Amino acid sequence: MAKKIELIGLETIPEVKKGDDIGELIVKACRRENVSIENGDIIIVTHKIVSKAEGRIVNLNNITPSKRALEIAKYTGKDPRLVELILKESDKIVKLSKEGHIIVKTIHGIVCANAGVDSSNIAGTEEIVALIPKDPDFSARKIRLRIKELTGKDVAVIITDTYGRPLREGMINMAIGISGISPFRDYRGKPDLYGYTFRVTVIAVADELASAAELLMGQGKEKIPIVIVKGCYYKRDEKASAKELNMPEEKWLFK
Amino acid sequence: MAKKIELIGLETIPEVKKGDDIGELIVKACRRENVSIENGDIIIVTHKIVSKAEGRIVNLNNITPSKRALEIAKYTGKDPRLVELILKESDKIVKLSKEGHIIVKTIHGIVCANAGVDSSNIAGTEEIVALIPKDPDFSARKIRLRIKELTGKDVAVIITDTYGRPLREGMINMAIGISGISPFRDYRGKPDLYGYTFRVTVIAVADELASAAELLMGQGKEKIPIVIVKGCYYKRDEKASAKELNMPEEKWLFK
Repeated sequence: MAKKIELIGLETIPEVKKGDDIGELIVKACRRENVSIENGDIIIVTHKIVSKAEGRIVNLNNITPSKRALEIAKYTGKDPRLVELILKESDKIVKLSKEGHIIVKTIHGIVCANAGVDSSNIAGTEEIVALIPKDPDFSARKIRLRIKELTGKDVAVIITDTYGRPLREGMINMAIGISGISPFRDYRGKPDLYGYTFRVTVIAVADELASAAELLMGQGKEKIPIVIVKGCYYKRDEKASAKELNMPEEKWLFK
Repeated sequence: MAKKIELIGLETIPEVKKGDDIGELIVKACRRENVSIENGDIIIVTHKIVSKAEGRIVNLNNITPSKRALEIAKYTGKDPRLVELILKESDKIVKLSKEGHIIVKTIHGIVCANAGVDSSNIAGTEEIVALIPKDPDFSARKIRLRIKELTGKDVAVIITDTYGRPLREGMINMAIGISGISPFRDYRGKPDLYGYTFRVTVIAVADELASAAELLMGQGKEKIPIVIVKGCYYKRDEKASAKELNMPEEKWLFK
C-alpha cells in the first residue's frame, strides 16, 4: 500500500576544484547529512561539478576563434570565442539562426544548443565557461566504482545536464552519462492491466530520473549538485550508455 | 541538511468508470493507504483515469472513417477508424510517414503522435481507445477543487500523458493539464551561486514533476494512476495553463 520513492538532495558538497574526487565528496556529504547509501540507490550528479573536477573549465580569453567561428559568430550574434569552443565540442552543426541559436550534435552525440557550453554556476567572470565532461558515461562509472570502494554498496550513477526541447517551452534535466542502469524501461511484449500487449512503449527512465532530481537541484542558489533516489525500480545494466538516448539521425522526423 | 522530496504512489484506486469522481477516489484511497493530504502537495494524475471518468472512451467499431482518413490510413498503414479519431482530435497534421507516424497538433495545442489516442490500460478489446480529456486544465481544476472541498487542503494538480520526443529515444511523461501551479520555474534575472545573472533559464517544472511521477506510475501492471509529491517547492498560480508548455509554431526551430 502506497509505494514510495524518496529524493534526497545533498546540501554540503563543497565548491569543487580540478582533481577533486566526486565519489569521495558524495560519501563524505552523506555521512555529514546522515544519509545512508544503500544497494540499489540511484545517485544523480549535475555535470557541472564533474566538469569542474575534470578541469573542463575554459577561460574565453584564452581562445582564438577560427575563421569559421568568426563567420558563425557574425551570423548568430554570439561571442566568437564561445562559438570556437562550441565548434570544438561538436561533431556537426544541426541548425543556426540569426536569433542566436546554435544547435549542434556534440562529440557525445547529444543534439543541443551551444554544445552544452555554459557560464552559469562557475566562480569567476562570465568569461569562464564549463564544457560537458569528455566521456560522461566514464565519469559516471568512476564515481560509481569509487562509491563501491568506499561503502561496499552497489549504486547506479546518472550525470545530467539541462536542455531546451524542440516544440516544447522550458528546459528540463536529462541524462548525459550513466553507469549501472539501463536508460530505458521497456514494456514491449509485456501485458498491460487488461492483457493488451504493448507494441512500442519504451520509457526513457534515465531522463525521467534526471528530471526528478532537478526538482531539488534547481539552477540557482539551491547548492544541491547531488540527489540520491531511494526506492525506485530500475533495470541494472553494466554495459548501458547514455548514448542510447540519442536518436540516430536516420530516425529523426523533425530536422 | 539533506532536503527531501517524497513521491507516494496510491495503489488502491479502483477501476474508474464514466461519471466517477476522481477527487473523491483520491481522498478515499489516501485514507485507506494512510497518506495525509497537506497544503502544498502536488497531486499527479495519469490522464487515462480522467478520460475514463469523463467518458472519453471510444469503440473503433462505432467510427466511420472519412475519405481523408481513408487516404491517410492507406499512406501510413494505420487503422482508418483510428485515423478518423486522430483527425477529430487534431487542429492540424504536422507530419505523416509511411512508417506509420501521424504527428499532429491536438485540439489542446500539444504536438504528439496519434493525438494521444491510445488503447493501453483500458478494459475490453484493442478496439476500445481513450482520448485525451477535452480540457485537461479544467479536469485538473475540478479534481483540485473537489479535494479542497473534501479535505480543506490546497493542493496543485497535474494531469499527465506519455509521449515520444523529437531527436531523443524513449518516451517520457509530460504535463497536459495543470491547476494551482505555474508550469515553469523562471530563473531569468536571478543570480546563480556566484552572482552571474541568468538570461534564459526557464525550467519546465510541471513536465519534470510528470516525469518524476512516472517512475512510480509505470505503463503496465503497476496500477498506480496517482502520485502525490510532498516537499517540492513550486510557484502557485491560479491562472496557469499547461498550454503554456506548448511552444508556439513561430518559435519552432525543428519542423
